[in-house]
Amino acid sequence: MAYNLLKGKRGIIFGALNDKSIAWKVAEQAHEEGAIFTLTNTPIAIRYGETDELAKKTGSIVIPADATSIADLENLIDETQKILGGKIDFILHSIGMSLNVRKGLPYDKVNYDYFQKTLDISALSFHKLLQVCRTKDAINEWGSVVALSYVAAQRSLYRYNDMADAKAMLESIARSFGYIYGRDKKVRINTISQSPTMTTAGSGVKGIDGLMDFTERMSPLGNATALECADYCVTLFSDLTKKVTMQNLFHDGGFSSMGMSYKAMDQYNKGLDAELGDDE
Amino acid sequence: MAYNLLKGKRGIIFGALNDKSIAWKVAEQAHEEGAIFTLTNTPIAIRYGETDELAKKTGSIVIPADATSIADLENLIDETQKILGGKIDFILHSIGMSLNVRKGLPYDKVNYDYFQKTLDISALSFHKLLQVCRTKDAINEWGSVVALSYVAAQRSLYRYNDMADAKAMLESIARSFGYIYGRDKKVRINTISQSPTMTTAGSGVKGIDGLMDFTERMSPLGNATALECADYCVTLFSDLTKKVTMQNLFHDGGFSSMGMSYKAMDQYNKGLDAELGDDE
Amino acid sequence: MAYNLLKGKRGIIFGALNDKSIAWKVAEQAHEEGAIFTLTNTPIAIRYGETDELAKKTGSIVIPADATSIADLENLIDETQKILGGKIDFILHSIGMSLNVRKGLPYDKVNYDYFQKTLDISALSFHKLLQVCRTKDAINEWGSVVALSYVAAQRSLYRYNDMADAKAMLESIARSFGYIYGRDKKVRINTISQSPTMTTAGSGVKGIDGLMDFTERMSPLGNATALECADYCVTLFSDLTKKVTMQNLFHDGGFSSMGMSYKAMDQYNKGLDAELGDDE
Amino acid sequence: MAYNLLKGKRGIIFGALNDKSIAWKVAEQAHEEGAIFTLTNTPIAIRYGETDELAKKTGSIVIPADATSIADLENLIDETQKILGGKIDFILHSIGMSLNVRKGLPYDKVNYDYFQKTLDISALSFHKLLQVCRTKDAINEWGSVVALSYVAAQRSLYRYNDMADAKAMLESIARSFGYIYGRDKKVRINTISQSPTMTTAGSGVKGIDGLMDFTERMSPLGNATALECADYCVTLFSDLTKKVTMQNLFHDGGFSSMGMSYKAMDQYNKGLDAELGDDE
Repeated sequence: MAYNLLKGKRGIIFGALNDKSIAWKVAEQAHEEGAIFTLTNTPIAIRYGETDELAKKTGSIVIPADATSIADLENLIDETQKILGGKIDFILHSIGMSLNVRKGLPYDKVNYDYFQKTLDISALSFHKLLQVCRTKDAINEWGSVVALSYVAAQRSLYRYNDMADAKAMLESIARSFGYIYGRDKKVRINTISQSPTMTTAGSGVKGIDGLMDFTERMSPLGNATALECADYCVTLFSDLTKKVTMQNLFHDGGFSSMGMSYKAMDQYNKGLDAELGDDE
Repeated sequence: MAYNLLKGKRGIIFGALNDKSIAWKVAEQAHEEGAIFTLTNTPIAIRYGETDELAKKTGSIVIPADATSIADLENLIDETQKILGGKIDFILHSIGMSLNVRKGLPYDKVNYDYFQKTLDISALSFHKLLQVCRTKDAINEWGSVVALSYVAAQRSLYRYNDMADAKAMLESIARSFGYIYGRDKKVRINTISQSPTMTTAGSGVKGIDGLMDFTERMSPLGNATALECADYCVTLFSDLTKKVTMQNLFHDGGFSSMGMSYKAMDQYNKGLDAELGDDE
Repeated sequence: MAYNLLKGKRGIIFGALNDKSIAWKVAEQAHEEGAIFTLTNTPIAIRYGETDELAKKTGSIVIPADATSIADLENLIDETQKILGGKIDFILHSIGMSLNVRKGLPYDKVNYDYFQKTLDISALSFHKLLQVCRTKDAINEWGSVVALSYVAAQRSLYRYNDMADAKAMLESIARSFGYIYGRDKKVRINTISQSPTMTTAGSGVKGIDGLMDFTERMSPLGNATALECADYCVTLFSDLTKKVTMQNLFHDGGFSSMGMSYKAMDQYNKGLDAELGDDE
Repeated sequence: MAYNLLKGKRGIIFGALNDKSIAWKVAEQAHEEGAIFTLTNTPIAIRYGETDELAKKTGSIVIPADATSIADLENLIDETQKILGGKIDFILHSIGMSLNVRKGLPYDKVNYDYFQKTLDISALSFHKLLQVCRTKDAINEWGSVVALSYVAAQRSLYRYNDMADAKAMLESIARSFGYIYGRDKKVRINTISQSPTMTTAGSGVKGIDGLMDFTERMSPLGNATALECADYCVTLFSDLTKKVTMQNLFHDGGFSSMGMSYKAMDQYNKGLDAELGDDE
């Protein structure tokens, strides 16, 4: 099922921790499609994750980088161009972290240092990456940059906390920088708003099972998997989507356009019946 | 609690069938706020409903009109201006009907004559009303027209059927005519996207109880009632919202901006638990 | 540049009039990518257009059909399956026409018979097509249906008239039927909101030159061409976008996410300067 | 034209610098409508602005506060309750500042310390305000909080820079906190997306004249003024809009729903003609 859609293209993939990561699947599919790329993640994630295994599998080099550090990003961009032998054609940004979520601080009792960190890691890192690329003129014309987002940017989900605001900002950065980089260098920038996915990060969110059952029944095509998301990324990195930019693209089996499905309502009503009990 | 917000204003209110109707509440609140208006509905609805009682209560005249008939609308506009003694300041359009829903035809087996009728009654009637007003120059500058819509225009809800498409078109007509009428005569046109409401029409929709329980628990402020909707209409008819036009305004306790609430998830999970049964 | 993305896939392409048509380019690209398909259009369009030439070029059969006629659509679906030897994998709906626009009737003086016709041709035809397919179970699981739309569905453009309301309804039908067909048969349904394009239909719209200059300067990547749109359609018909459904996808060089660009503002200001004249 | 819409209500108004400020007009109109409130701004803004004059005019007390400082906000909330004699019913947040804009750093060459400051002042300050209120349980049930936003949160406008991302985040905070505060205490939280306005802040943006001419001609009702915005705020603070929450409400004469108006296109075309010159 390889189409050579990314033949000759050079890229960078952020955030492949292990084989549950969306970024991991993107790396595998991009490799299948003929791309070459570097892999990057924070030094800690690289140590504890399995990125090296992925690198071997896809013939890639791993370059550690803290995505909030300009110096690290500069090094990443320089090294990538050296290693791959030219300017970059595509980038996947799959980064997000909230200490408020991790520490269980509710949204009305957040720690503001953590909040700033959430923004820096999950949203500003995307701007920094783009600014470094732009300054170094490191992306080829008609290059494609994708960041992963979530519907919480538009609609409030309990427990998603300050990550919702970070994702809203991430999507805004895609528009703001998409204008500048598109106008000046024909580079397109989009976000994919993906179904909740059972990655290592996702599985850490308390109650994600119930939520995923709900979105599965709400979405006419069911939740989108990490592998399906990777396939979608490939189309956005390919030459077939050159005029798509500044968009937030829902990849969610239809969830974002659902108000209520038969299946989810049926399940919900069982909860109502259970509550009303036998007497009814 | 009367503020005289609509003192000296003349209006037309469509669709007040009985005291559960949103339009009924709008008439009562508009009356409280000092407006004078005519009431209108189809001849059949007037015969079977209680519009006359409302007319007595609010000192209004009832003018029967089939909102899909240009002749009836022309008569309505002419008579209203005669009765009220001048041009019109506000109009409420609260009209919707689908024979496909009534006859239980599912969305993938609709009757197309019914579908055309759904569109004519629920959406084109709004255009016809506006075109008749525009042709007769019957609305004062800075007049305000509101039509009632529903979130199904943006997100699919099972059983809402072709009404979803009619509401999407209704909202589009508000934009399209809002541009023309705003530019030429400073008339503003908006839709209110209201919570599901237990009107006579609403209570005919099978399974609305479960849906309203869900939206009640999803919406941080709970479902909006007919009376609350009437209060909101008053603000949109008043002089305090002169520059709001071509908008679809959600009046739904926050539902439209929710992805998942704690309360709804909790209820949903009870359904999951019930299904899994005792063994767990 | 052929990737075999549609190898073995069977389709139907509506609306290829001549080599300026988006549908024409879709047929060419789909052919390149290994698909087989039938072409269809109204009998008149086939007579006056150059569809036969396209058929020869792509090894396709032309089946005349009035897309508002259930009988014609049934024949089309039956014949297509016979000719191509199996169920359908993808469909392009590229149909739109307004007699109000053609006859120069402004939006506040429309003829309602024409308006109903606009809706029937430009929006209901999409529902009819889907209902016929669903009834005949004519589309393979994970099949993909795309209809072409325009940003006028969200934002009012003078002169676009009742086509705006038809496009809003078209996009709603994609959501409504996307839920049903996705849930029951895993078929995905989306609309592409394409840049203004100098097709034969487009070039008939008065003042489209000025508008296209504006959108060209507003869009960071410039207007999307018919060929680029065809490439994008190919990705949506492919197996790489299986979980994208019920979406309206902007393919417009970024226009939909722009408020004001430097280039467009600069041009606009020249108009202001010209008006103010030499004295300044 | 006083309706007593805010009779007996207690509020806080941020950001009234001088009589061009939207917040200034809000204070005047809220006073007219019977509200009592405190005024607040940064110490520097109070020194250089004319807030004291407004305080005299509306019988208000001025409490200096840096809206990024929790301590200052706590003092503001405590003092306000003491001065006004009870819990708070409404708050206006009208705060925004970008050092990147002020220093003329383009969006692809921003200073990240400035960016963090933009976010802290223009968006996080809103969260801090709400968290302090929530912790102190300082807002009455059915209280109303409004923050001012701009269409740049959805669509890119050149020169608006990192303020676009801050506004996107501000609107997200309104949703995120709107869920929490609505669920727990029935407090509603919305943003108003206002036309470009010739405030002191606005007039500092280079090229705002051309932009305001464009939006004036694009908007069927013209740009919304600061006074009109104040009237709209009054309706949102009143008891008539109790179920409106988590919304971004466009108050812009219709601009947000326009793709292209006749007037703006006409002006734009003059720029095209001027460029083509006499020979044509």
